[in-house]
Amino acid sequence: MRLRSLLFAPGNRAEVLAKLPRSEPDGVVLDLEDAVPAEAKADARAVVAAAAAELREGHPGLAVHVRVNAVPSEWFADDVAVALVPGIAGVVVPKLESAEQVATVVEALDARGLGDLTIAAGLETAAGVARAEAVLDDERVVAAYFGAEDYIADLGGVRTAAGAEVLYARSRVALAARLTGTVAVDQVVTDLSDEDRFRADATVGRSLGYRGKLCIHPAQVAWAHEAFTPSDEELDRARRLLEAYDTAVTAGSAAIAFEGQMVDEPLARQARTLLDSADE
Amino acid sequence: MRLRSLLFAPGNRAEVLAKLPRSEPDGVVLDLEDAVPAEAKADARAVVAAAAAELREGHPGLAVHVRVNAVPSEWFADDVAVALVPGIAGVVVPKLESAEQVATVVEALDARGLGDLTIAAGLETAAGVARAEAVLDDERVVAAYFGAEDYIADLGGVRTAAGAEVLYARSRVALAARLTGTVAVDQVVTDLSDEDRFRADATVGRSLGYRGKLCIHPAQVAWAHEAFTPSDEELDRARRLLEAYDTAVTAGSAAIAFEGQMVDEPLARQARTLLDSADE
Amino acid sequence: MRLRSLLFAPGNRAEVLAKLPRSEPDGVVLDLEDAVPAEAKADARAVVAAAAAELREGHPGLAVHVRVNAVPSEWFADDVAVALVPGIAGVVVPKLESAEQVATVVEALDARGLGDLTIAAGLETAAGVARAEAVLDDERVVAAYFGAEDYIADLGGVRTAAGAEVLYARSRVALAARLTGTVAVDQVVTDLSDEDRFRADATVGRSLGYRGKLCIHPAQVAWAHEAFTPSDEELDRARRLLEAYDTAVTAGSAAIAFEGQMVDEPLARQARTLLDSADE
Repeated sequence: MRLRSLLFAPGNRAEVLAKLPRSEPDGVVLDLEDAVPAEAKADARAVVAAAAAELREGHPGLAVHVRVNAVPSEWFADDVAVALVPGIAGVVVPKLESAEQVATVVEALDARGLGDLTIAAGLETAAGVARAEAVLDDERVVAAYFGAEDYIADLGGVRTAAGAEVLYARSRVALAARLTGTVAVDQVVTDLSDEDRFRADATVGRSLGYRGKLCIHPAQVAWAHEAFTPSDEELDRARRLLEAYDTAVTAGSAAIAFEGQMVDEPLARQARTLLDSADE
Repeated sequence: MRLRSLLFAPGNRAEVLAKLPRSEPDGVVLDLEDAVPAEAKADARAVVAAAAAELREGHPGLAVHVRVNAVPSEWFADDVAVALVPGIAGVVVPKLESAEQVATVVEALDARGLGDLTIAAGLETAAGVARAEAVLDDERVVAAYFGAEDYIADLGGVRTAAGAEVLYARSRVALAARLTGTVAVDQVVTDLSDEDRFRADATVGRSLGYRGKLCIHPAQVAWAHEAFTPSDEELDRARRLLEAYDTAVTAGSAAIAFEGQMVDEPLARQARTLLDSADE
Repeated sequence: MRLRSLLFAPGNRAEVLAKLPRSEPDGVVLDLEDAVPAEAKADARAVVAAAAAELREGHPGLAVHVRVNAVPSEWFADDVAVALVPGIAGVVVPKLESAEQVATVVEALDARGLGDLTIAAGLETAAGVARAEAVLDDERVVAAYFGAEDYIADLGGVRTAAGAEVLYARSRVALAARLTGTVAVDQVVTDLSDEDRFRADATVGRSLGYRGKLCIHPAQVAWAHEAFTPSDEELDRARRLLEAYDTAVTAGSAAIAFEGQMVDEPLARQARTLLDSADE
């Protein structure tokens, strides 16, 4: 699953939801959680259901998701009952904290005949990060995002541009995603117009093993795609590296000097992964 | 519990202990562990007991603590028996490494009729950091500190000003503290006169979720209070942010652009936490 | 065990293996894994066995290791059966991921009468890092290395010079090594001629608690020895610090100001560890 970008929009804003495909994101999220005030949640469910159905029809290649409210919240049951429609890609569940909560989601989906929907897990609380591997272990959970703002709010810390305060949690979530075969999607950048910061943050996310970014503005989608797509220079170097490596292997040697670097299987594997990701 | 500063002084120095309140720290620690030589520990216990009683009487608002020696040490039992007095805030126990050791502390306190004393846990060894959540899980443990110097001594590493070598452990302890509802107090800065380094280190600690700093010199107390108290600028921005957010929520929207940043519930929560911490 | 450097060479290159001692590394690794192409593995085993026996005879002080292929691979059993010889220091096992795999290694060694060989565990996959403590817990495992290139290949991330993408895993492996009494050896630097980068990377490794570095070029050995040997300046400062500390302790004080820094037991312990490491 390719999720270089996952663009969010408020579930109570029909006109914004309809425009989501314009920036050509890999996935979209019709949000019933943080972006919708408590008083507007009930009405938003029908708006989301209608918009999701329309996006599913009109944009077959688009991974349409709905973010429901957290499992323990008063809204979760009705969100699942009203806002989800068959045939969309999946449901995004925020602030997941245990395998039990995931089981509750799976039951709720199955009871509604939505057994084909995948789950994207939000790991964005102290408990969610600490139990990440258990949360992601269910086969229905195919993607996960790390929510830096919520995580730091939960810890009572402070977000910084450099992000050292989330390096531990962000790394741990990426590792848990890999252990469970889950696609990891990286934290939001809340600065709406700071392109440099977004790109820098995405580069770090990619280095950690993330496959894409949560986007909260259409302009971020193109930046995310660029950051999570290997550059021509990278692809070119990977091809040259593999050619040199494969030639050497055929000649009986699997450790070579390539442009000043020692190359053996791990670096060849990194190069193959890079080329594969470009072919997706 | 407000613990922006926890000022240590050697338990065998009566005159220094008496002066502890002068810099107006949130908490003080009369130390029987690292600051007292083995030969002086026996005598120091009575000095500490007397000083603790006096500080308790003379400074009702001050959180008076005594740091005993580690549970497995030859001194622990007598430290509890002689140096602790009723009515102080709590006991600081260094180098805790397991829930069993915490149970030993609780038993020892209860046997002495000191059931009202809270425990502040020192996490400062490889095992202490690795078992942090288990150590902090006991309800009597209300605070925890991360001891960077001891941790790195235990690992055989090297301390640096930037502190990348402790970022993992420091982050992990802050997370464990949050998971267990414990107040996290950040590492010592051993450079006595380097104000810039102290402030920079405190800023990182606060970003990670710590609530205060261990202080080993009276001058550090004021720096710690500044670092762990929201600035007027921060408070002002938080108030403006919440006003804009609340206005938008009333109008039916919970995701707004505020001064170039996308603001929704997580950032509103960070702002509320900030304002709450200023009211404490 | 002193392992400031562990120099690797391809197991199918007899002439390179013979020259391994020239740069005077603490340990050498005759590699059957990444450096040897699949087609050459069978032949390489005999080459390695002969070279290992010769190195053992000719260089009694040298810690001679053979790296076999990973336990689940088709090559592991024959590697143990053919390439290992009695009397060498140990076997390096790459990509270990569980205590079960370690038990398989121990059984295979014992079945071959190689019960005196120690195990050096490669932790270089998502699972290996996540289960590091369990892998290292067997008493036969006396050393561990963190393989950054393989780890990041496994996560699908990107390696950078600064290395923030591996700080979590690298820190976690160092901690697991300390918890299990294992000597930790730090990641490879693949840039063959970049001395500055090697030294900088080794300095970070040492700060985290690593005792030495994997080397993939003879020139790196001297750099590693320098990085993992305390400098005269460090030793001098440690001696002065301990002298001042011990004098103060004798006089009844165990917390002193030393050259602008507060020194008590943790810093004294760091100084003692430093002096001990120089005496090895």
